[in-house]
Amino acid sequence: MSTKKLVKPSKTKTPGSVKANFERIGFLGLGIMGSAMAGNLMKAGFEVHGFDPTSKARQLFKASGGHVSKDAADLAQSVDVVITSLPSAGALMDTARVLAQAGRKGLLVIETSTLDIKDKEAARDVMAKKGVTLLDCPLSGTGAQAARKDLTVYASGPALDIRRLASVFEGFSKAHFDLGAFGNGMKMKLMANLLVAIHNVSTAEALLLGQRWGIKPSTAVKVLSDGAGGSRMLQVRGPMMENEGWKEATMKISVWQKDMKLIAQALADAQVPAPLFAATIPLYNAAMGMGHEANDTAAVFDVLEKMSSIPKKTALKQKSKR
Amino acid sequence: MSTKKLVKPSKTKTPGSVKANFERIGFLGLGIMGSAMAGNLMKAGFEVHGFDPTSKARQLFKASGGHVSKDAADLAQSVDVVITSLPSAGALMDTARVLAQAGRKGLLVIETSTLDIKDKEAARDVMAKKGVTLLDCPLSGTGAQAARKDLTVYASGPALDIRRLASVFEGFSKAHFDLGAFGNGMKMKLMANLLVAIHNVSTAEALLLGQRWGIKPSTAVKVLSDGAGGSRMLQVRGPMMENEGWKEATMKISVWQKDMKLIAQALADAQVPAPLFAATIPLYNAAMGMGHEANDTAAVFDVLEKMSSIPKKTALKQKSKR
Amino acid sequence: MSTKKLVKPSKTKTPGSVKANFERIGFLGLGIMGSAMAGNLMKAGFEVHGFDPTSKARQLFKASGGHVSKDAADLAQSVDVVITSLPSAGALMDTARVLAQAGRKGLLVIETSTLDIKDKEAARDVMAKKGVTLLDCPLSGTGAQAARKDLTVYASGPALDIRRLASVFEGFSKAHFDLGAFGNGMKMKLMANLLVAIHNVSTAEALLLGQRWGIKPSTAVKVLSDGAGGSRMLQVRGPMMENEGWKEATMKISVWQKDMKLIAQALADAQVPAPLFAATIPLYNAAMGMGHEANDTAAVFDVLEKMSSIPKKTALKQKSKR
Amino acid sequence: MSTKKLVKPSKTKTPGSVKANFERIGFLGLGIMGSAMAGNLMKAGFEVHGFDPTSKARQLFKASGGHVSKDAADLAQSVDVVITSLPSAGALMDTARVLAQAGRKGLLVIETSTLDIKDKEAARDVMAKKGVTLLDCPLSGTGAQAARKDLTVYASGPALDIRRLASVFEGFSKAHFDLGAFGNGMKMKLMANLLVAIHNVSTAEALLLGQRWGIKPSTAVKVLSDGAGGSRMLQVRGPMMENEGWKEATMKISVWQKDMKLIAQALADAQVPAPLFAATIPLYNAAMGMGHEANDTAAVFDVLEKMSSIPKKTALKQKSKR
Repeated sequence: MSTKKLVKPSKTKTPGSVKANFERIGFLGLGIMGSAMAGNLMKAGFEVHGFDPTSKARQLFKASGGHVSKDAADLAQSVDVVITSLPSAGALMDTARVLAQAGRKGLLVIETSTLDIKDKEAARDVMAKKGVTLLDCPLSGTGAQAARKDLTVYASGPALDIRRLASVFEGFSKAHFDLGAFGNGMKMKLMANLLVAIHNVSTAEALLLGQRWGIKPSTAVKVLSDGAGGSRMLQVRGPMMENEGWKEATMKISVWQKDMKLIAQALADAQVPAPLFAATIPLYNAAMGMGHEANDTAAVFDVLEKMSSIPKKTALKQKSKR
Repeated sequence: MSTKKLVKPSKTKTPGSVKANFERIGFLGLGIMGSAMAGNLMKAGFEVHGFDPTSKARQLFKASGGHVSKDAADLAQSVDVVITSLPSAGALMDTARVLAQAGRKGLLVIETSTLDIKDKEAARDVMAKKGVTLLDCPLSGTGAQAARKDLTVYASGPALDIRRLASVFEGFSKAHFDLGAFGNGMKMKLMANLLVAIHNVSTAEALLLGQRWGIKPSTAVKVLSDGAGGSRMLQVRGPMMENEGWKEATMKISVWQKDMKLIAQALADAQVPAPLFAATIPLYNAAMGMGHEANDTAAVFDVLEKMSSIPKKTALKQKSKR
Repeated sequence: MSTKKLVKPSKTKTPGSVKANFERIGFLGLGIMGSAMAGNLMKAGFEVHGFDPTSKARQLFKASGGHVSKDAADLAQSVDVVITSLPSAGALMDTARVLAQAGRKGLLVIETSTLDIKDKEAARDVMAKKGVTLLDCPLSGTGAQAARKDLTVYASGPALDIRRLASVFEGFSKAHFDLGAFGNGMKMKLMANLLVAIHNVSTAEALLLGQRWGIKPSTAVKVLSDGAGGSRMLQVRGPMMENEGWKEATMKISVWQKDMKLIAQALADAQVPAPLFAATIPLYNAAMGMGHEANDTAAVFDVLEKMSSIPKKTALKQKSKR
Repeated sequence: MSTKKLVKPSKTKTPGSVKANFERIGFLGLGIMGSAMAGNLMKAGFEVHGFDPTSKARQLFKASGGHVSKDAADLAQSVDVVITSLPSAGALMDTARVLAQAGRKGLLVIETSTLDIKDKEAARDVMAKKGVTLLDCPLSGTGAQAARKDLTVYASGPALDIRRLASVFEGFSKAHFDLGAFGNGMKMKLMANLLVAIHNVSTAEALLLGQRWGIKPSTAVKVLSDGAGGSRMLQVRGPMMENEGWKEATMKISVWQKDMKLIAQALADAQVPAPLFAATIPLYNAAMGMGHEANDTAAVFDVLEKMSSIPKKTALKQKSKR
């Protein structure tokens, strides 16, 4: 699939020579997302190297056919392109310093994490001094989607580099967009996440109302998905709201709290009122308070259900009074 | 397309004889929805009669090939099946009384309006006394969707009657579900509308944030629709949020206020907390207050934009101070 | 205490003769509010008659020194002024018809219930035809406050009648305001109730945050009441949020739902956005769902607490895992 | 007024010798709050020194009878007690370093700013190494209240030091509470601010509804203040919502955004759901977006009013159509 150019559509055909022939790809961060993308790149014929501080992650990666590097510096010297999938701004900055030192001039780094734009800019600047180029390329899709190559890449940064990386993007995603200036990728990702934060809860509200009326969540998902109320979250998270399906996390409540903070900060900085997003904040806080940290964000259904159900103990007491 | 049975799936094959051969259909209410459905039934080969209190609606219906009845009683005597598309509970009750008097025993009435279940039940009971059967069958889809037969029918009532009406449903919709007991259609419709109320506003929030960052709504709709934040509303109402697209109403803010009230009442009756739905209420009230009564519900974008923009007069004043 | 005139201040001194010498007062509705006001009027030297459909209410009223009437018609013939404290619009309309029939021309009726303005207007019109005057006079204060004469009367209707009733108002309240045209009393009451709906929940939010930090609600109420965050609700409902104090209802959750509906309708009619009021709706719905119908509205604290506490069963399970 | 002990009430009488005789007080930060408190301490007979980076602030301080220090280090050497009133965590940490260097062992520092507890703890630790003691003592009250000594001190830290400082607290406040361990002052302040954030908006909602009905805000404030809907914010900010009273800032919208962030973070950390606080966030963001940065937080009234008023231009257009 070719690059979709929306913000800066090129009017001429992309010359064949621009699309570079990268062969060796390095992964820093082999968590759920990283390992899934690495797997698809291997299938696509790339030689994939990888490093992760967790030994278990490294073992799984090796078992799947990857080349385990000693460390980030070692990896930087073995590959044409690095893909980062990191848990924090601190991890990104550490990585930036190592790649600036160890990486060859001209090395391209595809940064896919969801982090503050300012932190990504700082990392970019550190690397730029040594001729290493960072591209801001967050992903749309869960771990499950990554595994079946159902990801979309929100690429941003130098247009030429994005074009050159087309075959790499194609190796682990179903589509990629060139969104223009560095940081636009994260902006689009924050917009997507704002919608995800809301649609996850709207799904819970609708399904809870239906459940009260005796309509099973699975029935409601089937009937509603195709209509005016349909959404990707209804399809993906709706089924997880039945039978405690949230126990299989595709996005943990605790990790999601970081994403919530990024969106809230972006809205405050941009001075944009977002009443529905704001109304989701207490529900995710509540999910944390109720012990759902390690569960999927679909657990907001449990929060709403607890808010509208007579606790068992009380129910029994009331019964015994009669 | 055959009936999708979700709540009460029949275990035996539907015998061919059950699907009745209705030939003449009557419409009470020839507004945007009614006239669009009537047009599709004519195309499907039905003889379509119709009545509406507005003379202009009757003229348009005649011009499109319909048979104009003198009144509801007249219509009831000329058709096998009546389809009602009415603006209020009062209109439904008036209609119920006329059909109970004039309609033959065994007449089937497909009630497609969005009204309180209690009002529909009262109408059903009035007709049942005279052997006329009312089915609660709200629709998912806008006027524009009705025109291109892109409707879904949430049918509820006697299962046998729903099966017998299959060819009629197929004449004006892309799919119909048998949702079980009378009233379940409206319940599913209220769940769908709760989602619509929320996703319309979530779309406005995301697009406004993007606009602040210089990302055009049309670009955002294209990129986001396919991802985790995607929804039918983003696709349908998103484009209407650019260039005052809300001026072409597919659902007027003033009419929507009635739907909002039905959802709010349903939530209170079912004792279900729905924080995001609640957060949409002030925005639709605001749209009314700002003079958007006759505009599309997509005008909530204008409400949010006005909340975050320095009014021109003030902006000029501030400028002149420097 | 004399009448406080705010909306239509009279420029001339109120002549002594205007303040009428009413001696016999009749109560229709001897619930918590009615019986408390009746008691204070007796203490103030009035002869107080009363009727209530509940025999227990009549007995208590008799025991407290009141004259029990046979019915509303009987009562209307024995008194100078009637005070109504009724549970529903239906009860008011029934009462209006009886008083229009049985009451003498010139009878004054002080209507203190919280009901829709349109319903009060209809009752007023029925009585006006027979020369009976209804005044719209809702009260600010709970049953506990009524008992200690700590009520404020929001009087509205003919200015002269309000002045003539001064001694009656003084007999059961600490202050009364002449707010102008009939219905303005209810308008002020709806504004007060909007604030009550919100401040009750804001109190719960602040006290729950404090409790998480180990600060007892009673400590927080003491420290915060005097400061910028202080409110009447914090003082009155705050202490009820500790040790399940909500079990002693001063305003039942189930009754409050009616008040909530009146406010929501008023906001929709006036096209006024009220995001905080909207955000309280799910919490009162949740309180109903959790079985707090008969508890005080302070039970919203329990709703929020349940939203942020690991349920015991789960907590034990998690413990046993370690 | 003596210390109110709530969290850790002492069981023995406070010996007279504990209340120290401090004579010279130093102020770091001579803004609205600092200069008002300094003035009251002078009136109470203290010798007051002060420093502020702004020369105008220093001049005003000198004119009011204060001793201007060269810098923070100079000030630290001239006084018994330092009171800090600072705009940011950075300013506090800088101050902490200077006082740790320059201050004598045993110096007491009363920290009155609204800042993150973690930042205050860091400052405390830096000073503790040099024997300087920081007390966390945020204030309840606006600049206007500070001027008339209408402040409450939420003191926290070593109980003995709080007792020793009683005469100083009494010199600039009407009451002070010993709330226990360091940081409890800020916790109580955050609870107060959560209530302020909400009650400011609830006031705007009620007054806007009244205005729509033709009830002037000043009338509503008078009638409602004494009743169940009353709050300090209604009394203080309500009058500022008429005639653009928000243009005289007692708390600027832009400064308030920092306080909002502290509350939001505290709720997330404590895992407490606060739906009403969350619903205020978009309104303060909107106030920023609408150009109210330098106006008082009472400007949320303007946000809501703009949300419910037909813009003039549109209104005229609609008129001309008729």
